[in-house]
Amino acid sequence: MKPEIDPSGLMRWIIELSEITEVPPPAVTRVLFSKEDHAARNYVRQIAEALDLEWRVDACGNQFARWTGSNAALPAVATGSHIDAIPNAGAYDGVVGVLGSFEAIRALKAAGHQPIRSIEIITFTAEEPTRFGIGCLGSRLMSGNLSSEHAAALKDTGGKSLADWLTEQPWGGLLDSVRLEIGHYAAFIELHIEQGPLLEREGLDIGIVEKIAGPATLIARWTGNGGHAGAVLMPERCDALCAAAEMIVAVETAAKKTRSADTVATVGLCEVHPGAINSIPCDVRMGIDVRDTDIEARTQCIENIESAAHEIAERRNVELKLETLHAEPPAICDDQLVLLALESAQELGFTMRKMISRAYHDTLFMAELCPTTMLFIPCRNGWSHRPDEFSSPEQIERGTAVLANLLARAST
Amino acid sequence: MKPEIDPSGLMRWIIELSEITEVPPPAVTRVLFSKEDHAARNYVRQIAEALDLEWRVDACGNQFARWTGSNAALPAVATGSHIDAIPNAGAYDGVVGVLGSFEAIRALKAAGHQPIRSIEIITFTAEEPTRFGIGCLGSRLMSGNLSSEHAAALKDTGGKSLADWLTEQPWGGLLDSVRLEIGHYAAFIELHIEQGPLLEREGLDIGIVEKIAGPATLIARWTGNGGHAGAVLMPERCDALCAAAEMIVAVETAAKKTRSADTVATVGLCEVHPGAINSIPCDVRMGIDVRDTDIEARTQCIENIESAAHEIAERRNVELKLETLHAEPPAICDDQLVLLALESAQELGFTMRKMISRAYHDTLFMAELCPTTMLFIPCRNGWSHRPDEFSSPEQIERGTAVLANLLARAST
Repeated sequence: MKPEIDPSGLMRWIIELSEITEVPPPAVTRVLFSKEDHAARNYVRQIAEALDLEWRVDACGNQFARWTGSNAALPAVATGSHIDAIPNAGAYDGVVGVLGSFEAIRALKAAGHQPIRSIEIITFTAEEPTRFGIGCLGSRLMSGNLSSEHAAALKDTGGKSLADWLTEQPWGGLLDSVRLEIGHYAAFIELHIEQGPLLEREGLDIGIVEKIAGPATLIARWTGNGGHAGAVLMPERCDALCAAAEMIVAVETAAKKTRSADTVATVGLCEVHPGAINSIPCDVRMGIDVRDTDIEARTQCIENIESAAHEIAERRNVELKLETLHAEPPAICDDQLVLLALESAQELGFTMRKMISRAYHDTLFMAELCPTTMLFIPCRNGWSHRPDEFSSPEQIERGTAVLANLLARAST
Repeated sequence: MKPEIDPSGLMRWIIELSEITEVPPPAVTRVLFSKEDHAARNYVRQIAEALDLEWRVDACGNQFARWTGSNAALPAVATGSHIDAIPNAGAYDGVVGVLGSFEAIRALKAAGHQPIRSIEIITFTAEEPTRFGIGCLGSRLMSGNLSSEHAAALKDTGGKSLADWLTEQPWGGLLDSVRLEIGHYAAFIELHIEQGPLLEREGLDIGIVEKIAGPATLIARWTGNGGHAGAVLMPERCDALCAAAEMIVAVETAAKKTRSADTVATVGLCEVHPGAINSIPCDVRMGIDVRDTDIEARTQCIENIESAAHEIAERRNVELKLETLHAEPPAICDDQLVLLALESAQELGFTMRKMISRAYHDTLFMAELCPTTMLFIPCRNGWSHRPDEFSSPEQIERGTAVLANLLARAST
């Protein structure tokens, strides 16, 4: 079937949602529990209500919009993504998957599709790690990857725990209730911008994901001796930032040196204390993000980072605390679902390829619950997590059309 | 003469002033124009009024408390320091010089001293560069080192200019009026904690400064390409933080390599944008502080930093904007005043040495107006600009006694 996607309606939703931001547009910032996070959640709810979908919010804020099928007892087909955004991000990451899902259902309804299995759109809570330093909070809790006790105790940089935050939310409840059973869903399909340059470079419409790189996050904290930048001579210093700087270069080198071309390692967060122009840094906190689809290459990279860090700390006489915040295995998508997605794209006449996802997504954790795949669309220059992130209305329309077709196949 | 210093009264002032802070004690933060900056200014004013001193505030917020001498037409002897504090600093930097000056005048009055020249205590505005990125705002304007036009146009990180800030201050007026003529003062003497380890290590009471290292500040801004930390492969990256990290190490190396053992270079400020754990840094802004008493060694260091920076930028294909915010020559103190200070310390029976000041102070700029020297007292481990900065009540008492003796000599 060829459901008629309405690109202008969908783009209106995307633009309106992008205007709910903590910073001036076109930059988008929507951090969990901010006023803007709540406003964006309500925006999605209004769309669900206008489409006459059944609405539910779980105890950690995952939102569910359900189109009940003729056999409601069967496990539903799920789709969706997230609407939170890291500081100064763009309008498409996550959002295309959420709003595209609603447009797909609107088009399926308009085309007279009668689902046997229910179709459920999930807007996951806090896919981005901004507040608690850990990504995919909603899908981790849903899959049991993260225990409710561990989650409740997570603290943000202000020292406030998730449990404390949740008591202030309208949906707050028992975190235990978030977890779903294996088999609760028949499938999970996530539409997303690629966040990489491959589809654009190869001039393809659709990427169908068969593997997701496993992410790991390390936190390093360097403690040296501060002091006045004029008064302490060079040989007497224990500058925490000089140690951290060597580490930043070592992280880059470690990623380049593994056996896998897919290993990436990034220091994206580097907080310098006290952070004054005339003060020697006494304390630096950094986040290190390491990923690969090849788990052994990733392990090798992390080991090289760890040994470089300890060597630097010892040589410079700077104290180091290095901890692994999380380390997930890669996820393998479902062969049958990947095949079904290829057929959908083919039926609609789009060009496509199978690919891996180097970014991780809620799908990584949903894969612990049910068969999954992801549909990628190109984005300009592969850019993401920046204000000039962009996919064209046509690219979004094609991705949404494949999603609708695939949802129709999977729900009947 | 041996004026009787009251260490307990002076320590009470120091402790009370340290409790006026934007952060929990013992850390002290008082940034220009904050509520706490204003409260600290008022605290000083109350002391001046209790001592019956004549009060004046100039158009940029420098505060003057004058004890009029019997020949008021003669140029006054000036003393003083600053009370602003960088984020998470301590209780003694600057404060000892301001409150010690008031205690010195209280003791001289109590001892029946009759000054011929007036004695004037200056509390300089914004010695610390926190708000506008440039230190010694008050003394730069007073000496003409900084023009009133340039000063008015300075902007803080929020984009608000000094001129705009001043319209909101009770003392705001024409910045042109701040500048003083050469010869306006007969001398300027600044009491200060050493902010280095020398006096403590050698077990001495007093350091008498004969030279002040010349400071220079550079700002580097690195602009690369951002993107998702998972999605962009290593060879495709232009990571601004990796470039900045190499630069941090290069700054340290450049300082260690000059012909002078006194060269110091520090990256104290390093702001990473967007600063998310899963985002490749696209923009890094860093401050580089370089100092020496040997101007040629400092020039050599800055040139090495600049060429390293350009090499890194070119090799990594990252855009670099590097500008020199300011570069002051070293200051030479007045031989006669240094000799007088040595005699003061000797008369009081304290151990002493002549020394250089590696930190810079308002004295660096006052030296453009009149003969100067500084009196240093030991501070624990040489630590400064941190909450555990400490000089003992006895060390502070001795420094204040020498200041009082020297003011008595210089004012008669």
